[in-house]
Amino acid sequence: MVDTAQRSNSKKPARTPGRTSAKTTKTPAPTAVTPPVVPGVDTGPVMIAGQSGAPTVNIESLHRQLLGTWADVRLRARELTAQPALQRIEGQSMAEHRERVLGQLHILAENGHVHRAFPKDLGGEDDHGGNIAGFEELVTADPSLQIKAGVQWGLFGAAVLHLGTKKHHDAYLPGIMTMQVPGVFAMTETGHGSDVAAIGTTATYDPATQEFVIDTPFRAAWKDYLGNAAKDGIAAVLFAQLITAGVNHGVHAFWLPLRDESGAFLPGIGGEDDGLKGGLNGIDNGRLHFDGVRIPRENLLNRYGDVSEDGTYSSPISSPGRRFFTMLGTLVQGRVSLDGAATQASAMALTIAITYGSQRRQFNAGSDTDEEVILDYQRHQRRLLPRLATTYAHTFAHDEFLVKFDQVFSGQADTDADRQDLETLAAALKPLSTWHALDTLQEAREACGGAGFLAENRLVGLRADLDVFATFEGDNNVLLQLVAKRLLTDYSRKFASAGPGVLARYVVQQAAGRAYHGTGLRTLGQSVADFGSTARSVGHLRDTAVQRELLTDRVETMIAEIAGKLRSAGKLPAKDAAALFNANQNQLIEAARSHGELLQWEAFTRAVETTEDAGTKQVLTWLRDLFGLGLVEKHLAWYLVHGRMSAQRAQSVTAYIDRIIARLRPHAVDLVDAFGYSQDHLRSAIASGAEQERQNEARDYYATQRASGTAPRAEKAPARK
Amino acid sequence: MVDTAQRSNSKKPARTPGRTSAKTTKTPAPTAVTPPVVPGVDTGPVMIAGQSGAPTVNIESLHRQLLGTWADVRLRARELTAQPALQRIEGQSMAEHRERVLGQLHILAENGHVHRAFPKDLGGEDDHGGNIAGFEELVTADPSLQIKAGVQWGLFGAAVLHLGTKKHHDAYLPGIMTMQVPGVFAMTETGHGSDVAAIGTTATYDPATQEFVIDTPFRAAWKDYLGNAAKDGIAAVLFAQLITAGVNHGVHAFWLPLRDESGAFLPGIGGEDDGLKGGLNGIDNGRLHFDGVRIPRENLLNRYGDVSEDGTYSSPISSPGRRFFTMLGTLVQGRVSLDGAATQASAMALTIAITYGSQRRQFNAGSDTDEEVILDYQRHQRRLLPRLATTYAHTFAHDEFLVKFDQVFSGQADTDADRQDLETLAAALKPLSTWHALDTLQEAREACGGAGFLAENRLVGLRADLDVFATFEGDNNVLLQLVAKRLLTDYSRKFASAGPGVLARYVVQQAAGRAYHGTGLRTLGQSVADFGSTARSVGHLRDTAVQRELLTDRVETMIAEIAGKLRSAGKLPAKDAAALFNANQNQLIEAARSHGELLQWEAFTRAVETTEDAGTKQVLTWLRDLFGLGLVEKHLAWYLVHGRMSAQRAQSVTAYIDRIIARLRPHAVDLVDAFGYSQDHLRSAIASGAEQERQNEARDYYATQRASGTAPRAEKAPARK
Repeated sequence: MVDTAQRSNSKKPARTPGRTSAKTTKTPAPTAVTPPVVPGVDTGPVMIAGQSGAPTVNIESLHRQLLGTWADVRLRARELTAQPALQRIEGQSMAEHRERVLGQLHILAENGHVHRAFPKDLGGEDDHGGNIAGFEELVTADPSLQIKAGVQWGLFGAAVLHLGTKKHHDAYLPGIMTMQVPGVFAMTETGHGSDVAAIGTTATYDPATQEFVIDTPFRAAWKDYLGNAAKDGIAAVLFAQLITAGVNHGVHAFWLPLRDESGAFLPGIGGEDDGLKGGLNGIDNGRLHFDGVRIPRENLLNRYGDVSEDGTYSSPISSPGRRFFTMLGTLVQGRVSLDGAATQASAMALTIAITYGSQRRQFNAGSDTDEEVILDYQRHQRRLLPRLATTYAHTFAHDEFLVKFDQVFSGQADTDADRQDLETLAAALKPLSTWHALDTLQEAREACGGAGFLAENRLVGLRADLDVFATFEGDNNVLLQLVAKRLLTDYSRKFASAGPGVLARYVVQQAAGRAYHGTGLRTLGQSVADFGSTARSVGHLRDTAVQRELLTDRVETMIAEIAGKLRSAGKLPAKDAAALFNANQNQLIEAARSHGELLQWEAFTRAVETTEDAGTKQVLTWLRDLFGLGLVEKHLAWYLVHGRMSAQRAQSVTAYIDRIIARLRPHAVDLVDAFGYSQDHLRSAIASGAEQERQNEARDYYATQRASGTAPRAEKAPARK
Repeated sequence: MVDTAQRSNSKKPARTPGRTSAKTTKTPAPTAVTPPVVPGVDTGPVMIAGQSGAPTVNIESLHRQLLGTWADVRLRARELTAQPALQRIEGQSMAEHRERVLGQLHILAENGHVHRAFPKDLGGEDDHGGNIAGFEELVTADPSLQIKAGVQWGLFGAAVLHLGTKKHHDAYLPGIMTMQVPGVFAMTETGHGSDVAAIGTTATYDPATQEFVIDTPFRAAWKDYLGNAAKDGIAAVLFAQLITAGVNHGVHAFWLPLRDESGAFLPGIGGEDDGLKGGLNGIDNGRLHFDGVRIPRENLLNRYGDVSEDGTYSSPISSPGRRFFTMLGTLVQGRVSLDGAATQASAMALTIAITYGSQRRQFNAGSDTDEEVILDYQRHQRRLLPRLATTYAHTFAHDEFLVKFDQVFSGQADTDADRQDLETLAAALKPLSTWHALDTLQEAREACGGAGFLAENRLVGLRADLDVFATFEGDNNVLLQLVAKRLLTDYSRKFASAGPGVLARYVVQQAAGRAYHGTGLRTLGQSVADFGSTARSVGHLRDTAVQRELLTDRVETMIAEIAGKLRSAGKLPAKDAAALFNANQNQLIEAARSHGELLQWEAFTRAVETTEDAGTKQVLTWLRDLFGLGLVEKHLAWYLVHGRMSAQRAQSVTAYIDRIIARLRPHAVDLVDAFGYSQDHLRSAIASGAEQERQNEARDYYATQRASGTAPRAEKAPARK
């Protein structure tokens, strides 16, 4: 077994993980190990960190690379989240937790940390990317703090900013920014979450008084799950069907005062507390309903639609559909930030589990005296290292995503196509990273055994809080379906002018034509069309172009196949067309997921290409291979069924993954150290070095006993499981 | 879309789900629907429940079948768990919850529900299977209640019963049964969970005073994660290395008083509260440590090992290894009961999510007015119905497992081989069912959207509580490794007398020899050796013998392959042999998992065979096919790589699964109703019929508006996502 285990990771300052990590290494550089030859698989010699010729990771430079484009903002945010005043206290009651988080929002407001996206003339910085980067980092302090801040400034405030006009900005943004006006983003209803266009709340214009009248027509139209609604919100941005002169112009947003100075609901407004949730209990989610509530005409946030005094509706966007999606599109930042925050939670989980796994010992399989470090077990590596590779992929993809977001919101690249690409990107990445976070937090929790179940080690609390990330700001399955529809649209546009014969040929000759493109993140390089050859070696799989081809080919072929099946839909009655679409829904969503994975692989590959330090680059290349080939392994049946891979090469995928994992094992602790979290962020007892101290004490005890000759003799050679 | 959605499942009495369910059906029998033809796949006509010629499920008889061998015990237990006094109150503080659960244990003690396994002469019933059946049902009331009861009677009490002798039974069991003596099962230490044989706590015999002296030599040897240790336990069964006359005889159990009447620790004993956990916070888990604590010689629970007054050790089992495993083996019931409780939690989760999914509507894909019932979406079906099939498989497998347990513990079939089979069965099934429960609870939570995240709908609380099931009573990965070792042993025994040539031929000719057997649950029927034929139709996959062959072949081939790779291990130094084993660990664990899945498939198949009602039998056969072919689909790459299936047949697996799912959709609500939980057990607002009421109200509102002509006109044809 390779013993790189005795590194204590306690008290790493966030900004110098490399140096600190090196200083606290207790054991000498690990020694060379050649694993026994496994019949049938040429695993080759394993290169061990510190061994002559083996690569080493430059933790400090990798740390900067992982921090990404807004590294400085993130480092300042981490100083903030290292402050106990902003951190979660485990075990508080819901009421105490809510009170604490409300107070923390005032700290953030005073600090200005949350004002970066607001206009300069109101004290902001017009810095959209930096704002999200700083916001995401709050997850290390308390996800409730992060999400409640997101409700106040990212949803409520951003809706005023993006859907309102100057009069609304001047009137409302200052109070929002300072937290003088805590507010509610009142969009979702009990009956409608994913299908926002179908919400039931109405805002009917009354020209006699020049007011909108807000009504909740039935129970399913109660606003629901709204942060700040149960207790703190004194105003809301309310989404309702705008009706004027007998015409429903669809969903629009309105400024609506909710509570008076005593905290009581204003006349016509009622509500309920959503009560205890699976997590995020520092946020007061609740329900609202309205009965003839009148608000002035000017309260309509009128950037994309307005009503004149006489009730005439006007809009700069003539298509109601396009108008609706434009309005919703301004709120994409929620998905952007969840992608980043979820990825940070995955990184924290792996830092905790890999640190612990590199210190914890159990069972003495190959020795009479020394127990094995659990991260040296193949299964343990298989559980954690592929998830580490995925977390790296998500980190790099997120930074590119954030750059794209910043370009659109800064106006630097703000065409309709850019906005659509951004939304598709959000819809592809947010599901993958939020599911990955839940999966990783759970695997990390189990990998830490009973200790992982204790609140003091953070994993269970983070998982509980992040659970809802999978369904809020867009249900993950619904989002992936949106991605799939976009892929189908792009695909059909490509063949719009061609006859069905062209399409058929395309479907048959998948490996050739490579003209179809997904969202902007991806640019296709090389084409390799020689799959199925049994003569290819394991080494071939390391080829970047081969991995790209395998991943790209699958997405394109899946979309082409589904498009072929849906070709007749246009000629069918609506009901039958819907049924035909539905019969392919599962495959569509799987195709969208593979598309997102490809985007992440591309981002990871670009990150590897820009890495300068040679040792770091080598290790990152292995990690990228692990991610890419892990995807291939997951979908291996598809490659076999579609003749893209021979049985022989398919077997070599798993063999090569085993080999990369063994190579990466000595670098595992460096790779999580490079995330740069200090114990102030992790606050996990088992990742504090305490386990290493316990192991050292126990081993010293037995060593001393053996040396002194006072150890009791075993009845026989001891039997162990 | 098939509309069977409007069934309200509110207030079904547990004992008559069939009748009640029929009574509350609001819509007429669903109508026939022929789905559009999907190019390339012959989906065939879908038979709809209620349609002439389509099967119907007899819910009442299926309910009895699912309740299994101890149906009456379970029904009595469900009357008990329907009582609010035994139920969880969501949102209680840890202190309040602990206090409540402690009180509930006194209710159980008075009721006698938890005494079935104890000897008749002490007021028990010597009924081991019934005891576990009744115990498992407690999970519907509160998992904390269940597990704390398990600590008191299933671990603490059972250790006295099985490891002690008559003097201990007479002295301690009455107090344990009545809860006069709440106790701790003090086995696990901070440093040793899975490897119990290596615990550090010592019990050194002092012949001068005829006492054992209990010591904790270092911090890692603190007892940890122990239920009842933080607050309530006044005695413990302590596991420690028994040392007498300079010899360590390995782990033995001792009766140890912990606290005095005031609740203070006795001299030499200290401890800590484990504090807040990810769930099960009604249990006071804690740590204990000992410094020279003296207990009389008679406190050794001496069934399997004793120390005479002069310090001479004796045991009826001469091998220390066998003695250790015999002692631990008496405690297998923890794993048995977790398998059952986890399966019940899966059943509850699916009852909630499928009930809600059959009432909830979102998006009007194929209609201008009616939104789709979400369970009619293919993706939603794909998320829930395969998990329903798995839950059925686990339910049937668990009942067979419980019968085996009862046979062993009643002495009816209690050979060494029986006990080993039972333990292998426990190690195979407990991991699968506990992981499945977590997966199912999470998918159900997400399938219910934001509503699923509210505590009032139960899913998040159950998931939080069951999280630790994956690592306690044996870490799932460690248990599966035990199964794999057993499979390897069985395999090598088979070839012990044969030369290596025989072994090699066996590995090559996988499809022929079928002599190897796993645990007792499985008996092999028919042999089919014609894989790879491209001429086979989809229908072939429905053949029970084909499914059995596919699943069996995979387990046997995997084990044979690994055995081949490990053949040289015997000749290697221990360290290298361990490394070779480790290089195959992941595959070994995967083989063990497949073995467990095969056992579950066999149990499901036997259950189908004994089903008498023809319609129920047909639907159960589809459900079994879904389970079996779902396993084949999951491992499809393996079948392709190993030449067991052609690419063409591999594709038909997924096509056939899609077809079965569409067939099962109309029966989904019946299949969860057959679990027989009433709202008193589910206590989930969204499964109470409230969603159906909301949907009806909203649809009535719009229908009335349309009919009256007062509906606002849409600006254009409304655009929906």
